[in-house]
Amino acid sequence: MKVGRKWSAVAAAGVLLGAGMASAAGEVPTTATSAAQMAVRMFPSGSSAVILCSGDPKSERSDLVAGQALAAYLSAPLLLTQSAVELGPNTLQSLSQLSVPDANPIGDVQPYQPAPGKPKVYLVGTKDSLSGSLVNQLESLGYAVQDLRTDSASALLSEVQNIVAPPFPSPSDAPGFPGKWTTYAGDQAHNPFYPVPDSAPSWEKEGVMWNFPEKAAVPLSQEFPDLRQLGMRGAPVKMTQSLGNACGVTAVDGVIYAESDDAHLYALDAKTGQLLWQAGPTVNALMGNPIVGDGLVYVTAGDTGFSFSQVLKFMLSQGKMQLVRGLTYSAIYAYDQKSGRLVWRQDFQGNAMPSPALVDHAVYEATGDGHLYAFDSKTGKSLWTTDLGGFDSMSSTNYWRDPETGRVEIIVGVSDANNVVAVDAQTGKVLWKQPTTLNIFNTGMGDNTPTVDQENGLVFQDSVVDNDPKTNTVDLAIYAMDARTGKMVWSTKLGRGSSPPAYKAGVAMVHDGVVYVGSPATSRYYALDEKTGHVLWTFHFQNSGPAGAGRGSAVYAYDRLWVAAGPKVYALDPKTGKELGSYEPGGRFGIVNPVIVGKTMYLGNSYDWIQAIPLSKIDPTVQSSGA
Amino acid sequence: MKVGRKWSAVAAAGVLLGAGMASAAGEVPTTATSAAQMAVRMFPSGSSAVILCSGDPKSERSDLVAGQALAAYLSAPLLLTQSAVELGPNTLQSLSQLSVPDANPIGDVQPYQPAPGKPKVYLVGTKDSLSGSLVNQLESLGYAVQDLRTDSASALLSEVQNIVAPPFPSPSDAPGFPGKWTTYAGDQAHNPFYPVPDSAPSWEKEGVMWNFPEKAAVPLSQEFPDLRQLGMRGAPVKMTQSLGNACGVTAVDGVIYAESDDAHLYALDAKTGQLLWQAGPTVNALMGNPIVGDGLVYVTAGDTGFSFSQVLKFMLSQGKMQLVRGLTYSAIYAYDQKSGRLVWRQDFQGNAMPSPALVDHAVYEATGDGHLYAFDSKTGKSLWTTDLGGFDSMSSTNYWRDPETGRVEIIVGVSDANNVVAVDAQTGKVLWKQPTTLNIFNTGMGDNTPTVDQENGLVFQDSVVDNDPKTNTVDLAIYAMDARTGKMVWSTKLGRGSSPPAYKAGVAMVHDGVVYVGSPATSRYYALDEKTGHVLWTFHFQNSGPAGAGRGSAVYAYDRLWVAAGPKVYALDPKTGKELGSYEPGGRFGIVNPVIVGKTMYLGNSYDWIQAIPLSKIDPTVQSSGA
Repeated sequence: MKVGRKWSAVAAAGVLLGAGMASAAGEVPTTATSAAQMAVRMFPSGSSAVILCSGDPKSERSDLVAGQALAAYLSAPLLLTQSAVELGPNTLQSLSQLSVPDANPIGDVQPYQPAPGKPKVYLVGTKDSLSGSLVNQLESLGYAVQDLRTDSASALLSEVQNIVAPPFPSPSDAPGFPGKWTTYAGDQAHNPFYPVPDSAPSWEKEGVMWNFPEKAAVPLSQEFPDLRQLGMRGAPVKMTQSLGNACGVTAVDGVIYAESDDAHLYALDAKTGQLLWQAGPTVNALMGNPIVGDGLVYVTAGDTGFSFSQVLKFMLSQGKMQLVRGLTYSAIYAYDQKSGRLVWRQDFQGNAMPSPALVDHAVYEATGDGHLYAFDSKTGKSLWTTDLGGFDSMSSTNYWRDPETGRVEIIVGVSDANNVVAVDAQTGKVLWKQPTTLNIFNTGMGDNTPTVDQENGLVFQDSVVDNDPKTNTVDLAIYAMDARTGKMVWSTKLGRGSSPPAYKAGVAMVHDGVVYVGSPATSRYYALDEKTGHVLWTFHFQNSGPAGAGRGSAVYAYDRLWVAAGPKVYALDPKTGKELGSYEPGGRFGIVNPVIVGKTMYLGNSYDWIQAIPLSKIDPTVQSSGA
Repeated sequence: MKVGRKWSAVAAAGVLLGAGMASAAGEVPTTATSAAQMAVRMFPSGSSAVILCSGDPKSERSDLVAGQALAAYLSAPLLLTQSAVELGPNTLQSLSQLSVPDANPIGDVQPYQPAPGKPKVYLVGTKDSLSGSLVNQLESLGYAVQDLRTDSASALLSEVQNIVAPPFPSPSDAPGFPGKWTTYAGDQAHNPFYPVPDSAPSWEKEGVMWNFPEKAAVPLSQEFPDLRQLGMRGAPVKMTQSLGNACGVTAVDGVIYAESDDAHLYALDAKTGQLLWQAGPTVNALMGNPIVGDGLVYVTAGDTGFSFSQVLKFMLSQGKMQLVRGLTYSAIYAYDQKSGRLVWRQDFQGNAMPSPALVDHAVYEATGDGHLYAFDSKTGKSLWTTDLGGFDSMSSTNYWRDPETGRVEIIVGVSDANNVVAVDAQTGKVLWKQPTTLNIFNTGMGDNTPTVDQENGLVFQDSVVDNDPKTNTVDLAIYAMDARTGKMVWSTKLGRGSSPPAYKAGVAMVHDGVVYVGSPATSRYYALDEKTGHVLWTFHFQNSGPAGAGRGSAVYAYDRLWVAAGPKVYALDPKTGKELGSYEPGGRFGIVNPVIVGKTMYLGNSYDWIQAIPLSKIDPTVQSSGA
């Protein structure tokens, strides 16, 4: 047999699996050794998971169908036992070779690097084909075992099917959830709180807890990757920009949708944290929250970088040249909300980091090439493109609907020149620009997502101002503008502090006459009177480190203000700013707003995990205080 | 049955597979429908390949073992037929759902987006279990079929094993190949030509032809992705920086190693183009050529970007501040040469785009944070770090061994300040710096990889100079330096032309007293007298477009000069520069040097393909002129 001979030659050269594994010349390979050889070759640096099925030729085929599906779902190798009651020496040797090597001399973690050590073994088969003694043998050798053995073949298929293709929730399964998500943080005011009706199932009313690791996930207990290279100021910023979830998640009809820098979109069951579907890789990092409506999920891909020619031209023009932000590919994608199938895609020149807005069956995205684009929500057909006169960094589009005329304004911030710009949603005509008279620094308005009080016709936006290069300090100014004219209603400076790395602003939230906003310059949270800008109270995030905290917006629920900042989530008294409770779920939050449905808080973090936390973990008094 | 009920509910909501696919309430799911449901759920946007095995419960289990392995290898879904002779309606429906949607309204291609259309179907099973009528049925429905059916179960396993885990070549299988690859383009002179002995196998002596698509591959016949957004000047540069293979490949002991912007390292059989192993994803794009020696393969990950804070500080300092190049994560990796297992990894602050050099069991890498790092080749232990006084962009490290003292100099170019720097390999002490007196522009010396004539003690390097912002034109200057002192021996300007986007230089190659170098400013290739810098001839690349051509180094073989530029490979007369032949293999070349072993040219391209071309395709007269 030609193949047997070659494998033998390879093994003789010390390449592969050791002499025990290779078929001798002329020998017919057995199924178990073939599977092992193929698995080890395809997963040379090991795997965190291994699927184990029976190698007994008399076992049912459905075992292998289930094992194949789970292997595909986990991107894991599949091995076969050498009988129903023993793993066999070849299988054991392959299992050992599939451990993940400890390859970094100083122990740093990095994205896409699975934790060193032995794989978790998933036993997939009926109890007839895989004996319970295998579990004992594996555990005695130090392997963690996930025992998926069942009594019957059909039960096994059902069980695995429930893992890899769990049922998609229907809206009636999750009555507390909104049915769409049309703008950043759920609504114009950026207050994503969804109380549930009395008829809601207990998981919604009591809250659930789970952690879901995305593709680049690093362990929640580890220090920041590249901490030694980048320090406490740079390392967390790099995680937010290049590793995990930059912003918050989206909750629609019992499903959590989340975007990651790992270039994938995830749809999870909000109750269980199970993956329903994933899409990707996209052409670049996904850094906003998914927008859901018209049956589709809209996400945009981009990055924070500049090319050297942009750097040089900007320097030579003394900052006068309009920059294009975005180093590599950039696009907007629309996926079917329920199946995850790609429906349409359009490409951009500059980055598309911020989230789009969906209004009246059109999708609006502002990009790093300084334009606002409008697309038909169902087909992706381009409706119009408008020059904004400055690049968008991370400013997601918001909107205001004029109650008198019905006209919709698309509102977004841009950098260089710094402006808040309002554009007619129908025609693409620029309606107003507000530059402020303040001394804006750095990416300024283009980093921050505007907040809209639809009823009172106000737009809130903030930016760093008054940079002092000697002390490397800045102030953070927040502005209230008239939504119809862009005229400044008030502006308030919140206080000086170290110039924050990257996203140098906090996203505001407005609720019941009060604007809530954080400042990463001072690592404080503020409540301001919506009409005057007078500061009502401040709250200080302790131990937020040199990167600062307070970028993500808060959510108002159950007479509390909930905020994610640094490694913690907080419950504050919205009247006084007094801390009512806090919780450290592991990881660290970038520009993340909590989303609250019933008694669960949903978040994505910079470690590339999606998290569900019952509110009672953060503030134990919330359970009794009720909805 | 709980699961059956839920699937039914899902189907009733119109989510999934149509009424025909879902099990009715209480019904036990069959193996075929389960496999189909799981496959469609896990591959919501379809797949370019589908594995088809028999759903007959009486078929051998080894069919499914083979099918599972091929599905893992191709990252493809696996479906089952409903009998040995017919696909069945559910399987056909799933197959139809696994077609790739045509999702871009204007038809653009992008990395990671498979071509729209029906999947290719791989039939995996014995002829007993999968009838030949299935092939006819599939083909009549418009599916391309790869018929892998065999007469016996053991033959099937062997066949699939040969695809997913082909034998690793031994050095004696490929006698013409070098046994290591210690520096960029194979040796200090950057002339990667390896003639084969008379005893070599015919495939080495005659040449082979194959194309291997990497993970982000776009069809070779398509126009550049984002051409509409970026134009003919920007679109090909973005491919080189963010999509495919920026530089050339590595050839060692019958294996082609190639790095891609898709963040994977590939090891292919040089004879067949079959994948032997792949490693990744790494933390960032891989943009050099893999360095091979001491049993390991060394690759480095980085990107071309700058952060906004770097942009701003550079502007405010009027270009005086030392820039850090590199936006996201960056590292060096060492993999086992034969198995692909990760052995060690170290992380950097700035980018690590250029290739390292391996000298005397130490690995040297210069990075975007302006340092040269030395590591023990086997353990990755840090030996020393030296400040270079400027950032490295794409300048790979080279070396010169002083024949009198035995001292090894590590030689590299850096930008801002622009210098060629020589560092003592043992101590990390800077031995000399050569800034030249010319007016260097842009990334200058830090983009270009120095070339060393070991015997004559000369270092060659080039950079763009004399920028004229009014016409956006530059000249390209090439320098010869004394390797021991860094003293300038000569410099020659090659002529003005449009300032090229990105990599603004050509890598030089020196052979037998002549320096060969291209200029993307003029899109010409030049031969210069090594001792004087006098130009001997020039050759003009026709139709190279506004991005320019001539970045990659040439290879001298069989009395011809072989160059890859733009969409073509050329054979030139090294005495006159006259074109002897050319060939258009599909795709486009970035900073790619051809590698020639025997009568085959090996290349990687910006479309994310690795290519093998017999020399006779480029110059039909080469076969008879012989080695």
